[in-house]
Amino acid sequence: MSQQVDWTVLARTCPSRTSLARIANKWTAMIVTVLADNHLRFTDIRTALDGISGKVLTETLRDLERDGLVERKAYAEVPPRVEYRLTPLGHTLYGPLRTLVDWAELHIPEVLAAREHYDGQHA
Amino acid sequence: MSQQVDWTVLARTCPSRTSLARIANKWTAMIVTVLADNHLRFTDIRTALDGISGKVLTETLRDLERDGLVERKAYAEVPPRVEYRLTPLGHTLYGPLRTLVDWAELHIPEVLAAREHYDGQHA
Repeated sequence: MSQQVDWTVLARTCPSRTSLARIANKWTAMIVTVLADNHLRFTDIRTALDGISGKVLTETLRDLERDGLVERKAYAEVPPRVEYRLTPLGHTLYGPLRTLVDWAELHIPEVLAAREHYDGQHA
Repeated sequence: MSQQVDWTVLARTCPSRTSLARIANKWTAMIVTVLADNHLRFTDIRTALDGISGKVLTETLRDLERDGLVERKAYAEVPPRVEYRLTPLGHTLYGPLRTLVDWAELHIPEVLAAREHYDGQHA
């Protein structure tokens, strides 16, 4: 008899919350977006994600690799070449995360107007 | 002649990145999920989001209100009642963010297996 587990991000101790924290993240959204159609080297990703620090990118890629979303592939070449790509599991996040990126770019005029209104009322 | 602006989260200085940071966030995902069908008081939201600190919830709700995603409504009652609800703009995020929450709860067994594998290789 299999055990039915009810995972819920709303429970503090449920592991699914740690997974949500990883995927509901601006850097994850950008990395999954740029890796969607490409295998990229660390420096390529860093260039694409204008402004990310080397430390944050290193940690984020390691976290994504640990969660099975990104694969790190080292080629035995001289000089050594390392590429990052999405795993099949990581690819399933492309649609949802791309939607968030598109939302941010589409709705930023409304968001900026809301901020101006809010700041005017709370100055 | 209207000016065409190309917003892109990939540019460090583009405001759309600040909007992405706000929406690609675990607390935002959970708040938008619990407010989808409900107007809730602060304490109700805090109870629903098991483990969130009062400080973080206060700041997150204020940020979401400033970005035009959540509306804070105060009723002139005794004792005073304050409720939070999604704005129409905030409602457009329900689908995408609910998808991320569902993803986290659906795929956590695969994520946990990936973590175990990774930790075994990097022990």
